[in-house]
Amino acid sequence: MNTLSEQHVAHARIAALRAAMQRQQVHACLIPSSDPHLSEYLPERWQGRVWASGFTGSVGLLIVTLDFAGLWADSRYWAQAEAELAGSGIALMKINTAGSLQYVEWLAQNLKPGQRLAVDGAILGLGIARQIEQALQSCGASMAPECDLLQEVWSDRPPLPDAPVYEHLPPYATQSRAAKLAALRAEMRAQDCAWHLISTVDDIGWLFNLRGADVNYNPVFLAHACIGLEQATLFVGAGKIAPELAARLAADGVTLQAYEAAFPAFAALPSNARVLLDPRRVTYGLRQALPAGVSVVEAVNPTVFAKSKKSAAELAHVRAAMEQDGAALCEFFSWLESALAQGAVTELEVDAQITAARARRPGFVCPSFGTIAGFNANGALPHYRATPAAHARIEGDGLLLIDSGGQYLGGTTDITRVVAVGQVNAAQKRDCSLVLQGMMALSRAQFPRGLKSPMLDAIARAPIWAAGIDYGHGTGHGVGYFMNVHEGPQSIAQTTMPEAHTAMEEGMITSVEPGIYRPGQWGVRIENLVYARHAVSGQFGDFLSFETLTLCPIDTRCLDLEILRADEKAWLNAYHQEVQTRLLPHVSGAAREWLLLRTAAV
Amino acid sequence: MNTLSEQHVAHARIAALRAAMQRQQVHACLIPSSDPHLSEYLPERWQGRVWASGFTGSVGLLIVTLDFAGLWADSRYWAQAEAELAGSGIALMKINTAGSLQYVEWLAQNLKPGQRLAVDGAILGLGIARQIEQALQSCGASMAPECDLLQEVWSDRPPLPDAPVYEHLPPYATQSRAAKLAALRAEMRAQDCAWHLISTVDDIGWLFNLRGADVNYNPVFLAHACIGLEQATLFVGAGKIAPELAARLAADGVTLQAYEAAFPAFAALPSNARVLLDPRRVTYGLRQALPAGVSVVEAVNPTVFAKSKKSAAELAHVRAAMEQDGAALCEFFSWLESALAQGAVTELEVDAQITAARARRPGFVCPSFGTIAGFNANGALPHYRATPAAHARIEGDGLLLIDSGGQYLGGTTDITRVVAVGQVNAAQKRDCSLVLQGMMALSRAQFPRGLKSPMLDAIARAPIWAAGIDYGHGTGHGVGYFMNVHEGPQSIAQTTMPEAHTAMEEGMITSVEPGIYRPGQWGVRIENLVYARHAVSGQFGDFLSFETLTLCPIDTRCLDLEILRADEKAWLNAYHQEVQTRLLPHVSGAAREWLLLRTAAV
Repeated sequence: MNTLSEQHVAHARIAALRAAMQRQQVHACLIPSSDPHLSEYLPERWQGRVWASGFTGSVGLLIVTLDFAGLWADSRYWAQAEAELAGSGIALMKINTAGSLQYVEWLAQNLKPGQRLAVDGAILGLGIARQIEQALQSCGASMAPECDLLQEVWSDRPPLPDAPVYEHLPPYATQSRAAKLAALRAEMRAQDCAWHLISTVDDIGWLFNLRGADVNYNPVFLAHACIGLEQATLFVGAGKIAPELAARLAADGVTLQAYEAAFPAFAALPSNARVLLDPRRVTYGLRQALPAGVSVVEAVNPTVFAKSKKSAAELAHVRAAMEQDGAALCEFFSWLESALAQGAVTELEVDAQITAARARRPGFVCPSFGTIAGFNANGALPHYRATPAAHARIEGDGLLLIDSGGQYLGGTTDITRVVAVGQVNAAQKRDCSLVLQGMMALSRAQFPRGLKSPMLDAIARAPIWAAGIDYGHGTGHGVGYFMNVHEGPQSIAQTTMPEAHTAMEEGMITSVEPGIYRPGQWGVRIENLVYARHAVSGQFGDFLSFETLTLCPIDTRCLDLEILRADEKAWLNAYHQEVQTRLLPHVSGAAREWLLLRTAAV
Repeated sequence: MNTLSEQHVAHARIAALRAAMQRQQVHACLIPSSDPHLSEYLPERWQGRVWASGFTGSVGLLIVTLDFAGLWADSRYWAQAEAELAGSGIALMKINTAGSLQYVEWLAQNLKPGQRLAVDGAILGLGIARQIEQALQSCGASMAPECDLLQEVWSDRPPLPDAPVYEHLPPYATQSRAAKLAALRAEMRAQDCAWHLISTVDDIGWLFNLRGADVNYNPVFLAHACIGLEQATLFVGAGKIAPELAARLAADGVTLQAYEAAFPAFAALPSNARVLLDPRRVTYGLRQALPAGVSVVEAVNPTVFAKSKKSAAELAHVRAAMEQDGAALCEFFSWLESALAQGAVTELEVDAQITAARARRPGFVCPSFGTIAGFNANGALPHYRATPAAHARIEGDGLLLIDSGGQYLGGTTDITRVVAVGQVNAAQKRDCSLVLQGMMALSRAQFPRGLKSPMLDAIARAPIWAAGIDYGHGTGHGVGYFMNVHEGPQSIAQTTMPEAHTAMEEGMITSVEPGIYRPGQWGVRIENLVYARHAVSGQFGDFLSFETLTLCPIDTRCLDLEILRADEKAWLNAYHQEVQTRLLPHVSGAAREWLLLRTAAV
């Protein structure tokens, strides 16, 4: 339940939006969780939905009409949204998954002929905008895509972030900017396009070997890019790129322009240009900015595929980063066990200690996402985040779930482990064993190169389904190289259409993270990152298998060994042997003792 | 290689098409493998592609321009098409799967602005027609959908089939026509539609409890149906329904009209009607026939879902039919083994004997598809069909693959077994064991109710992938109840988009049929039908598992028992025990001895 003053704030802001709607003669407004780059993490400037609704979850969508206000949130956020929206007059509209388009249907059913929907087209994905346009057409309404009401009512709207941009340098950057640009231009030529526009900040950071800190966790900076066959322009905030770096970029044919100059520059493209762009990775506003006569070729950004296939040199750095990350985790877990032996530890201390352990490691830059440390019932919330105001003490008996990761100059990590606190009961051990079976089944799988990655999902779930259990999130996501911890194109999840572009290819790094969640009781998730590599070729084509990259013991105190088959125990023992061998050179003292203890064979 | 006279025929027919194209001022023509009902098996009248091209495969698509003729065929048919098209001047356009839309891209790339494509809209699926229209628009060409050139040039075009229609009666028909119509109308009301048009002959046969024999194997008859909220009209060839049956239909509010009256009747629907239709199950021609003002609600035919969920009463009949089918197979296999002991048997004899054995069983109507009996290299062709002109003698050593099925009044069967001929070598045994592992893994799976069925595909493939092997066909298809042996909506195949409507639900019957094919050597496929039934419910929802319906020994002489795990051997032994127990009452003499021998535990 919110305080009265918070309710008052939400009421006043919705009222201000409605007043602006009446001034602008629109009948509804839509505020998505989105920015001009369709980023996962939004700079504060584009957290308008949080500002207007008071709902602070990372994903949600607000629709306001003159007599209705509703926030669409998926099941991860229902409890939080109910609490934060209480008394605000904003209805919680429950959807099952973040990608649900139920709000589009709602618009079609609730807007009337002639009504107009205000939306900031500059932050609305082109693909989704088309679906909204179509839905509005079906009911005779229309979209007002240049009507950013927030600009009018959000008086203290935060400015653009201004963190400096820096270069990702060799040896960690294993391919030069010039080489990446040349490869991209070859793809552009193959599609007969002289121009390519990019708005997604991970594609831009990867392509130019640049990194930033405009948002938490993802080492990216806000920019648009326009790639021609001879030169390229990067549109980035003034002063964020130092003159020395600007000179180095210029030497590679990269010109800098102001961030705000992007759309005017796109509008000035030759009117007969053939422009390659990705409707899922640029906004409606960008598309509208183009001259009427251009031919648009729609395709997945070539950089999406290029950056997903990690090179052998990158893989070597990732392996080294995993050793550092695993060693940091040994230090953390040995601290945790001794701290728990001396009394309670809080979930917040887990976050602080695990980040501190990583920060002592060479190459560490920052966490790759907010640590999830959930004890017992809190572990049953897959996206739980302990806060100073609400967190649990870890004491007594049960399971502690810790999902954390780091950004290193030589790679990005993401790992989940469940560890025993006090006594672990039989039901908890069964759940841990089933989840481990699912993780092992997929980690050991061999499959045809180019398989649509969603098709792998059932392999991890089958052992869990066999017990009448399922989990409500995807089994795996792609992971960047000192880049976003969530990156495509591959995805091991049922909710993803197995489109051709989700093919699993050699060089991809993907998480494998099945789980079991028992609301109010405990949660189990075991997550490793795996690398897809060539396994065998023959008359049936090329097959891939996974190399497990993540190096950290799996707590065997949480397992019911009776459940594991002999071949599964053998996999677990071999994994622990590998973990021990590779981490031992990097740990000492208590961490070393802990590593030896927790990698003992079962 | 074709004979010279066959080449001459194809040349003359393509020339006649081109002359007609010039008379009609069209620049290309497209002849799909399709009929007004989008059926799997085409009556001869709609085998225009076979007539024009000489390619006799069941799926293929012909495009003719003034200076090009090409036939698009998927990998199953490449060898056959190369042989049958040789010397015809028609290019073989190789595609990977039958559903490939590469020819649509070809049209977009090869037609020029202003050019027109002739196609018979009355046999073109509405969904595919839209894609063709869009592709033609992109290149400035257009579709001439009322230009059926075949009607002009095919002088001895066969007439419509005239086999009588008969009633599927209780006890085998377990739900009355009136009840089915009432349930359908409830669905129509739920979608606020006063009218529903059906063209698919399995939906029509199921809904009206009628069967026919207009094509081979599928017990269906050609008809369209128009369902109103109070009455229904069936458009069917004159004289095919006897007066007594017509009276029984009239008693259920079903009016008969001539087959040719369907489109005129659709054109006469009220201009403000809301009409439910399925864009994947009606043609472009039907849609065009509707009055301009109607509101069309597009959704999967409700009968598709209704008929896929077999009732408990239907299941009881299917189990009984499976016992008869299994007993027939015992008779066949015991004959085969003794015949082989006395000398060679031909693949054609296999077909004749297996059909004869089924025909001796009560309730048998006809085969449910053309028997595939392929010895050694012929077994490596998944869609092989022995012919009097080309078939193998079964002798020496190797594997004989037999895929066959029957239509019974109480169900439809489809089974594949591989049996040993002489000595089976180690590589063959390994393949058989891997395929069996895949079949068992999926047969034993438990999974959430409503899972999109394509997601199950990997469970059957995983053990085969693990050996660096894959197979190029789907793992499973839905099966009708004394109805088409291939029916949706479920499909366990990677090529199917896991759309919501492919959900696996309680009551569905599906094949499980992984395989391994070694071109020029041998082929292995093991196929059972399974029934999806409720397994367990709890906090994670409802779970389904499969009951294996098919009852026939799996030849353990073809297995390498070292490959099977203990739990897999236990499944196989339990299956064989069940087969023995349930078939013993239905067999005697040599068949009984064979059953006892081939169901011995391993």
